[in-house]
Amino acid sequence: MDHLLYGVAYYDEYMPYVRLAQDIQMMKDAGINTVRIAESTWSTHEPQNGVFDFSSVRRVLDAMHEAGIHVIVGTPTYAVPAWMVKEHPEVLAVTVNGEGKYGARQIMDITSPAYLFYSERIIRKLMAVVHKHPAVIGYQIDNETKHYETAGPNVQLRFVKYMRETYGTLEAINHQFGLDYWSNRIDSWEDFPSMVGTINGSLGAEFARFQRGLVNEFLAWQVGIVNEYKQPGQFTTHNFDFEWRGYSFGVQPSVDHFAASQPFDIAGTDIYHPSQDQLTGAEIAFGGDLIRSLKQDNYFVLETQAQAFPEWTPYPGQLRQLAFSHLGSGASMVAYWHWHSIHNSFETYWKGLLSHDFLPNPVYKEAMTIGADFKRLSDQLIGLKKTSKVAVMVSNEALSAIEWFKLPGGLIYNDVVRWMYDELYKMNIACDFIQPGSPRLSEYELVVVPALYAVSDEALQQLNDYVHSGGHVVYSFKSGFTDEQVKVRHTAQPGIIHEACGIAYSHFATPNEVTGLTGKLFPEGAAAGVHTVRTWMEMIVPGSAEVLASYDHPQWGEYAAVTRNTFGEGTATYIGCMTGPAALAEILRDTLQLAGLWGADQQLMFPLIVKSGVNRQGHTIRYYYNYSAQPLSFKYPYEAGTELLSGNPVAQDEELTLGAWGVMIIK
Amino acid sequence: MDHLLYGVAYYDEYMPYVRLAQDIQMMKDAGINTVRIAESTWSTHEPQNGVFDFSSVRRVLDAMHEAGIHVIVGTPTYAVPAWMVKEHPEVLAVTVNGEGKYGARQIMDITSPAYLFYSERIIRKLMAVVHKHPAVIGYQIDNETKHYETAGPNVQLRFVKYMRETYGTLEAINHQFGLDYWSNRIDSWEDFPSMVGTINGSLGAEFARFQRGLVNEFLAWQVGIVNEYKQPGQFTTHNFDFEWRGYSFGVQPSVDHFAASQPFDIAGTDIYHPSQDQLTGAEIAFGGDLIRSLKQDNYFVLETQAQAFPEWTPYPGQLRQLAFSHLGSGASMVAYWHWHSIHNSFETYWKGLLSHDFLPNPVYKEAMTIGADFKRLSDQLIGLKKTSKVAVMVSNEALSAIEWFKLPGGLIYNDVVRWMYDELYKMNIACDFIQPGSPRLSEYELVVVPALYAVSDEALQQLNDYVHSGGHVVYSFKSGFTDEQVKVRHTAQPGIIHEACGIAYSHFATPNEVTGLTGKLFPEGAAAGVHTVRTWMEMIVPGSAEVLASYDHPQWGEYAAVTRNTFGEGTATYIGCMTGPAALAEILRDTLQLAGLWGADQQLMFPLIVKSGVNRQGHTIRYYYNYSAQPLSFKYPYEAGTELLSGNPVAQDEELTLGAWGVMIIK
Amino acid sequence: MDHLLYGVAYYDEYMPYVRLAQDIQMMKDAGINTVRIAESTWSTHEPQNGVFDFSSVRRVLDAMHEAGIHVIVGTPTYAVPAWMVKEHPEVLAVTVNGEGKYGARQIMDITSPAYLFYSERIIRKLMAVVHKHPAVIGYQIDNETKHYETAGPNVQLRFVKYMRETYGTLEAINHQFGLDYWSNRIDSWEDFPSMVGTINGSLGAEFARFQRGLVNEFLAWQVGIVNEYKQPGQFTTHNFDFEWRGYSFGVQPSVDHFAASQPFDIAGTDIYHPSQDQLTGAEIAFGGDLIRSLKQDNYFVLETQAQAFPEWTPYPGQLRQLAFSHLGSGASMVAYWHWHSIHNSFETYWKGLLSHDFLPNPVYKEAMTIGADFKRLSDQLIGLKKTSKVAVMVSNEALSAIEWFKLPGGLIYNDVVRWMYDELYKMNIACDFIQPGSPRLSEYELVVVPALYAVSDEALQQLNDYVHSGGHVVYSFKSGFTDEQVKVRHTAQPGIIHEACGIAYSHFATPNEVTGLTGKLFPEGAAAGVHTVRTWMEMIVPGSAEVLASYDHPQWGEYAAVTRNTFGEGTATYIGCMTGPAALAEILRDTLQLAGLWGADQQLMFPLIVKSGVNRQGHTIRYYYNYSAQPLSFKYPYEAGTELLSGNPVAQDEELTLGAWGVMIIK
Repeated sequence: MDHLLYGVAYYDEYMPYVRLAQDIQMMKDAGINTVRIAESTWSTHEPQNGVFDFSSVRRVLDAMHEAGIHVIVGTPTYAVPAWMVKEHPEVLAVTVNGEGKYGARQIMDITSPAYLFYSERIIRKLMAVVHKHPAVIGYQIDNETKHYETAGPNVQLRFVKYMRETYGTLEAINHQFGLDYWSNRIDSWEDFPSMVGTINGSLGAEFARFQRGLVNEFLAWQVGIVNEYKQPGQFTTHNFDFEWRGYSFGVQPSVDHFAASQPFDIAGTDIYHPSQDQLTGAEIAFGGDLIRSLKQDNYFVLETQAQAFPEWTPYPGQLRQLAFSHLGSGASMVAYWHWHSIHNSFETYWKGLLSHDFLPNPVYKEAMTIGADFKRLSDQLIGLKKTSKVAVMVSNEALSAIEWFKLPGGLIYNDVVRWMYDELYKMNIACDFIQPGSPRLSEYELVVVPALYAVSDEALQQLNDYVHSGGHVVYSFKSGFTDEQVKVRHTAQPGIIHEACGIAYSHFATPNEVTGLTGKLFPEGAAAGVHTVRTWMEMIVPGSAEVLASYDHPQWGEYAAVTRNTFGEGTATYIGCMTGPAALAEILRDTLQLAGLWGADQQLMFPLIVKSGVNRQGHTIRYYYNYSAQPLSFKYPYEAGTELLSGNPVAQDEELTLGAWGVMIIK
Repeated sequence: MDHLLYGVAYYDEYMPYVRLAQDIQMMKDAGINTVRIAESTWSTHEPQNGVFDFSSVRRVLDAMHEAGIHVIVGTPTYAVPAWMVKEHPEVLAVTVNGEGKYGARQIMDITSPAYLFYSERIIRKLMAVVHKHPAVIGYQIDNETKHYETAGPNVQLRFVKYMRETYGTLEAINHQFGLDYWSNRIDSWEDFPSMVGTINGSLGAEFARFQRGLVNEFLAWQVGIVNEYKQPGQFTTHNFDFEWRGYSFGVQPSVDHFAASQPFDIAGTDIYHPSQDQLTGAEIAFGGDLIRSLKQDNYFVLETQAQAFPEWTPYPGQLRQLAFSHLGSGASMVAYWHWHSIHNSFETYWKGLLSHDFLPNPVYKEAMTIGADFKRLSDQLIGLKKTSKVAVMVSNEALSAIEWFKLPGGLIYNDVVRWMYDELYKMNIACDFIQPGSPRLSEYELVVVPALYAVSDEALQQLNDYVHSGGHVVYSFKSGFTDEQVKVRHTAQPGIIHEACGIAYSHFATPNEVTGLTGKLFPEGAAAGVHTVRTWMEMIVPGSAEVLASYDHPQWGEYAAVTRNTFGEGTATYIGCMTGPAALAEILRDTLQLAGLWGADQQLMFPLIVKSGVNRQGHTIRYYYNYSAQPLSFKYPYEAGTELLSGNPVAQDEELTLGAWGVMIIK
Repeated sequence: MDHLLYGVAYYDEYMPYVRLAQDIQMMKDAGINTVRIAESTWSTHEPQNGVFDFSSVRRVLDAMHEAGIHVIVGTPTYAVPAWMVKEHPEVLAVTVNGEGKYGARQIMDITSPAYLFYSERIIRKLMAVVHKHPAVIGYQIDNETKHYETAGPNVQLRFVKYMRETYGTLEAINHQFGLDYWSNRIDSWEDFPSMVGTINGSLGAEFARFQRGLVNEFLAWQVGIVNEYKQPGQFTTHNFDFEWRGYSFGVQPSVDHFAASQPFDIAGTDIYHPSQDQLTGAEIAFGGDLIRSLKQDNYFVLETQAQAFPEWTPYPGQLRQLAFSHLGSGASMVAYWHWHSIHNSFETYWKGLLSHDFLPNPVYKEAMTIGADFKRLSDQLIGLKKTSKVAVMVSNEALSAIEWFKLPGGLIYNDVVRWMYDELYKMNIACDFIQPGSPRLSEYELVVVPALYAVSDEALQQLNDYVHSGGHVVYSFKSGFTDEQVKVRHTAQPGIIHEACGIAYSHFATPNEVTGLTGKLFPEGAAAGVHTVRTWMEMIVPGSAEVLASYDHPQWGEYAAVTRNTFGEGTATYIGCMTGPAALAEILRDTLQLAGLWGADQQLMFPLIVKSGVNRQGHTIRYYYNYSAQPLSFKYPYEAGTELLSGNPVAQDEELTLGAWGVMIIK
C-alpha cells in the first residue's frame, strides 16, 4: 500500500433502514478510507440456490467509489445459507460432538464437495461483479478460517490415506505411535478406528496436524479462484486470528499461520484484547509481531475493536492509542469490526464505531482525530520496516501435543508462550516469530523457545548448531521432550538439546506452595516471596552447564532449576520450571545482557512501551506509549527529532511526559 | 370460598400400608379441611391402555366426605405411564438436547396428538367418577404446566405457520429479525431452519413466546373439558410456579401467567422458599402479589413446604408464621406438599407434614395450632381485599430477550426484578404486578419497571402517557432498549421513553470494583463503600432531567447514573446502573416520598414486615411479622384494635413486641 | 507364597527398541523377582481376527525364567482390538451416555456374546502357550474389572428377567419400589422402561446391584476357563481397585469385592495415593485392610505407584516407606505399575520405576534397597497374620443408595466411610472390613458402621443381636434408614436398630455454620471452634440411651447428637451428625476405652503409625512408620526385640527415633 488504510467492516445489508449516503458522509468525516464488505452475507447474495442478487454490493461499490473510499471484498463462504443445509445437510461438519445444527457460522465441513461446489459458484459470481470495479483494492478470502473440528467419515477416510502416504506401513505407525498400548494396534487399514474416540495423544496430535492441513488446502483453493479474477494492483489477504480466551490470546490451535499465509499477497489479522484498566497493549504486540513475521512485511489489521463489549468500551484516549499501537507493530491498515452496532442477533453487544442510534458518540469522535492524523502522517508512517534481533519460536505441533498432555492446573502451550513473550514485551524487546526448522534462524542473535514439546530431531539439531555457531537460546521446561509424533525421546532429557544445554534430568514434579529459587541469579532466594516456582519443576542435573538457580525446597534442593551452558560460540539457557513473572524477567535480563541486547529502550519498562522501525524515507520512527492511567515521564535518549502528532521538536535527553493512555511518535 | 382452606396433597396410592382412616384422623386433629388428590398417579388409574381403576379415588373421596374434608381433584396428565411411552415413543418431547427418555415427569410434547388423546380420555373417565361426588369442591388442571422445551419437527412446523400468520412474509421476517446477519436469511418457507440451532436472539425469543402460547392453549383445552363436568360451586384452578433457583425465585420463563390464568376460576400457586435463618418472607410476598394480580382476587397456595428439605426444616414457630404470611398476601388457602414423606423415589427428602414414620412430630404439632386458628378466625380473615398504589411491571418478553443477552456475570431478568421488588418489600410497600400494555396501569400512583428490555412501541408510549397524566415511573437500566422482536431501537436510547425520562445514552460499560455513586442523592459518595455500582452502567447524558446521581469513576465521572424528569403531571425516574441494595433503597425512598407513598408502615423496615387488607366485614386487618430470631418491638400507629391470635386489645401507639419468627394480626 | 514378591508390570511390547536383556539385568539389580505381563496387549497377541502371535510372551517368559524372575500372566481382555469393534460394533457398551466410541480401554459390554467368544478364544490360546511354562506362578484375570455402566437393550432385557426372578410379580415391584409415584407403575412386563431414564432411586440402586452381579459372573466365568489350565502351585488373582478420586479413595461402587473375589485363590489390589507432603499412608491401610478381609489372608499389591504423576514423585525415602507400609498391612507382594515410563499415549505421565530414558534414577536406586531388604527379610516378613478386634461394616447397597440421595454438599457414602476409618487409622486401631450379614460379625469386639443407609431387616436384626450378646457398635447417622430396596422404613428411625440404640428421631436438618456439640463428651462445647457439626444432623430424642452430646444451636439445642445405649450385654453408640475429625476422634476414643480396646499402640498417634501381626515363626512383628518430614521419637513399650532393617537390638521402653518418612520393623 502506498498510504495508511483506516477502515471499517460495513454491512449495508444489516441496516434497519436505508442510510448508505449518511454512513458514507460520517465515514468521510472520520477519515475512514477503506471498507470491507460481503464476507458475511451469502444468503443475501444468493437467497435461493442459483438465484443471485448482488445489488447491495453494486450499490455500495458505486457509492464508495464516488466517495473515494476503497473497498475490500470478502468471499462470503464462512456462513452458509439455510437453503444449502436444507438441501444438503451433509455440508455440516460432523465433529466429536456429533452432527451439526444449522444456525451459527463456521459449522461446515470445509472438505464437503457440496459446500465447495456452491462456494466456488458464489465466489465466481461475486468476482465477476466486482473484480473490475475501480473501488476494489483487494479481496479477503473467507473469514477467520479454521477446520471447525470436522471429523466425519469422509474426513476420517482422507486421514487414513494421509497416514498411509506419510508413514507407509501400519507397522511403522504401530511402532511410532505406540499403538500396542491398551490394545490399540491397527493391523489392517480397514480397521483404522475413527479419531473421534482416540485416547492416543500421538494420533490425536497427528489428526490435528492433518486438520490444519485441510485449512491450508481450502484457503489455497479459494485464493486460486480469486487469482483468476484479481486485477493488477489488487491483493488477496486473510484475517488470521488467535487462540481465543474471550480475546486474542495466543498461537491459533487450528491453523498453521505460516503455511496457511503462503498463497496470500498480504497477511492480515483480527486482534481483540481487554480494554479499560486491563489494557496493556500486549495482545496488539503479540498478534502484530506474529502476523508481521508470516510474510516479513507490513500487515493489515482487518478487524479490531471499536466499542465492542461493555467491559471493553474504551476510556477516552484509548481508541487513539490503540490505532497507533498497531502502526508501531508494522500494520499498514487499522480497521474496526464494525461500522455500526447490529440491531439483531448474536453480536448485538459487540458494538461498532457507531452505537445502535447511528449518532456521533464519543468513540466515533475520537476516531475522527485518528483518521485525520492517519491522513496527515501517512507518508511518514506507511511501510515501517522493523528488524528484530530476537525471535520467539512457536509451534502448532507443540501446542497440539500439550493439549493432550496438559501441565498441572490445566495450563497449556499458550500459557507458556505468553509467559515468556509478555516479559520480552514489558522489556521493550522487539521480537519476530519463527517456527522450528526456520531457514531464518541464523538471522537472530537470541531465540526464545517456549515449551517446544513436540519437535523433530532435525529442528533440535538445527538449534544445537545455531548455538554452536554463536547464537543464544533460552529454552523453557518441556522443550525437546517428544518427537514430532509426540513420542517421548528415550534418551536423556531434554532430548537432543541436552547436548547444547549441558544438562540432564530424569524426573520432575509439581512444586508445592513454598518452592522457591535460590542461587546465583537469586542471591536472596525466595525469602522475598516473589521468586516462587509454579506448576512444573524439572530436577536438573547439570553436566557442563553453569547453575543460575537451584530449587529452594526441603527435598529437591539438590537440583538445578535454571542453567546456562556455553556450547561452541553461543550459549543455551534452560529454564526448568515455571516461575512468577519477576523471576523470569531476571533470567531474561541476564541473558539479554549476555547477548548484548540490553540497550536504551530497556531502560524503560512497561507500562512505558517503545516500538520502532524505519520508514520509507529511511528515517527511524519511534512510538512511545503509556499503557496506564497515570502520566509517565522519561528521558528521550536518541538524537533530536520531531514528535509527529504534535509537530513539536524533541531534543536528545529531553524529559518527555506521556499522559494517561498517551502516545508519541518521534521521527 | 367462604372459609379458609387448610390443606395437604394426599397420596393414598403411595402409602406403604393401608392407613387412610388413621391419616384422616390425624388430619382432623390438625384442622386440615382440604386435600388435593389424583394429579400424580395416571399409571395407577390407568394401569394399562384403556384399563381404568379409580378405586383409590373413590375410597378417598368417600372417606374424606365422611370426615368433612374437601377434595380438590387434579387431572393426572403431567406424568405419563410407561405403557404410553412404550406404545407411542413420540409423546416424549424432542428438545434442544434431542430425544427424551422415560422416567421423569413433565417430559412429554404437550402438542402430541397421542398424548392429547389419552389425556382427554383419562380426564373424562376421572371426571365421570368424581364430578358429582359431594366431597369435591374443585379441580386442579394438570400440575405446574410448562412447555418442557418441546421443539421437535411437529412443533417446528407449527412455529413456521405461526410465523407466517404473524408476519405475513419472509421479507418482513428477514428484516425484522435481522436474518441477513451471518447469512441466516430465509427466502423460501421450506428452508425455515429448526429453532434448535438458532443463534438469532430475536428468533429465539419469538420461539419462546410461541412455546408459551402452547401452554396457554393446552391449559385452556383441559379447562374446556373439565368445564363440561364442573358442577355449580366447583372451581377450576392451577398451581402456577416460578423461576426455580432451588426455590421460587422470579417470573416463570415458560409460562405467561397472565394469559394462562384466564380460563381458570381461581388462581393458584406453588411457593417454596429458603427457611431457617434464610427465611425472609420475600418469596411468599413476591409470589403472592404476582398470583393475586392475575385475577385481582384471593388465590390458593396449592403447595408450599411443610418439612421439605433438610436445609428447610422449619425452626419452631416458622411453619406458623409462614401460614399467616400467605394469608396476609391474600391467600384463601394454604396447602402443604405434602401430607406424608414418600418412602421411595425422587422426592424422598422433600418431606411432608408427617415424616416417614407417620408419627406426630414437632412440625405436625405446630400445624395443629395453625389449623385451629384458621378455623377460629376464618370469618375474619377470609376474603381479604388488598389495594396497592404501586405496581411492578413484569414481562415474559423482556425475560426471554435477556436470556439471550445476559448481563455481565450471567445475571438475568429476574435478578433485576428481585433486586427492585425486594427493596419495596423491605420497605413494606404493597405491590401489584402488571404487564406492559395493562389497561389497569392508570390505577396506580407509581409503577416500578425492572429491565423492560423487549417491549412494543405502544406499551412504551402508554407509559409516557401515564407519566404525562400524573403517574410516577421508576425504570431500571436496559428498559426500552429493544422492540418486541428484540430488535434494538435505532433511535436515541432509552428508546421512546427517553422522551418522558429526559435523557439519552449511546454507550455503557461494565463497572469496575471502585465505581461508586455521587451527587444529590448520595452527598457522601461511595466513600462509605456501600453506594457502589455493579454489573452494568449506562452513560447517561441528561436532557431535561435532573441528575440524582452521577458515577464516581475516574473516566466516566461526567455521566449521570440516576435521573428524574418531570414530564407533564408526573415524573420518570431512570436508574442507569445496577447498585447495591442500600443505594437502590435510597432512590426508591426518594421517589416514594415524592409520590406521597411514604406512610406509617414505612417507619418499619424488614425484618419487621406489615401486610394489610380489608376483610369481608369491612375491617382493616393488619399482619405484623418478625422475620428474625431476635424479638422486635414497634409502636402500633393505628387506631386501637384487637390482636386476633391472642384476643388481646391493642391501643394506638402501644409498644408491641414480636417474638422470634412471630406474627400478630390486628383488626 | 513362600517368599515376598517384589514386582513390576512389564510391557516388552511397548518398548521403543529391543531391550529385554537390559531390563532384566536392571530388575535383577533391583531385586525385582516377579513381573506381570500380557493383560494389556490383546491386539499384539491377536493382530487380526483369529491370527495369533504370542512371540513376545514366549520371549519374555523364557528370559524371565532364565533370570529366575516369576511371571504372572494376565488375561488380555480389558482392552479390545480395533478389528473387533470394526467387525462387531455391538461389543461396545451402550450406557446412559449412548453408544460408545472405540479408543479407550474398558468400554465393552461384558455380556456381549461376541466379546465373550473372542475373550474365551484369546484366553485359551494364551493359556495353551503359558500354562506349563516354569516361569509362570499364576494368573491375573482381566484388569480392574467393572461393568462399565453397560445398560443397552440386551442388558435391560436381562434386568427385566432378573427382576421377575427376584420379585415374582409386578405388583410386588410396584409396591416395594414405590412405582405409583409420578405415574411410574409397570403393569405389563413388556412396558418395563429402560433404566437409563429412571428417576426412581430404588430401581436405580437395584440396577446397580444387578450390574455388579454381571461383574461377579464375568470374573467367575474367566476364572473357570483359566482353572482348566492352571497347574499345581499356580494361583489366580485379580487386582481389585477402589472408588477413584484421582487416587484410591473408598469402596468400589461398581464391584462387590466380597462376592467377586470368591473364585480367586488370592486377593489382589491396585492402590494409588497422594504422595510428597500429602502422603499419610491412610489409603494403603484402607485398601490393604479391605482386600485382606476378602479372603482373610495375605494379599497381593499388584499395582502401586513408583514415580507416577508429577505431584506424586516420591520424596527420598518415601518409596521405601511405602513398600513396607503394604507389608505391614499384610501384603505378600508389592508390585509397581510399571517398570518403564511409556513413550506414547494416554499414560505418558504415569511414570514407572524407570523414566523414559531407562537410566538408573533416584527412585530406581531406592527400589534397589527395598529389593535387597525384601530378599533378606523374606522369611521373617512373609505370611504375616493379623487379627483385628474391630471391624468396619461396608456395603455396596448403602453406597448405591446414597449415590441417589446424596448428603448436602454432594457428599456420598465413601465420605462417611473414610471419615470414620481415617480416625481409627490415626489411632492405630487395627481393622477388618465386613459386609452386613457377615457370619464373622461375632468375631469382633467393636463394629463401626458408617452410613448403613440401605440394608435388610435381617442384617439390622443381626446387629441388634450382636449388641445384645455383648458386642459394641458405633453407628453413624443415616444407618438403618431404608431397606435393601431403598424404601424408607416407616417405623421410627433409625429403623430396627432404634431398639438397640434406645433412640428415635423424626426429622433432621443441614447444620448452619455455628452448630456445635456440647454435653458429656464435650464439656467445653463448641467454644473451642473444633467440635462443630457439618453436613447433616438428626434430631435425636433419647429413649433409654444416654446422651453423649447435644447440639449447641439456638433452635435445635433440645436434641441429642450422640448417644449410647446399653442393650443386653453390649452397647450401641449412635452418632447422629457429621462432625469435624477431632469430635469424631473423641467419640471413638470414648467407645474404644469402654470396649477395652485402648492399648499401648493408642498412646501413639498419626503421623506415627504402628501395624503388627504374627509371622510364620509365631513372632510378633511390629512396623513403625513416620508419615511426616520431621523426625519423631517414641518409647517402645513392648518386650525387647530386634529392629530388622538395621539389625539393631531394641530394649523395652527404649526411646526410638524415626527419621522423615522413616520405617522400623521390630521383631
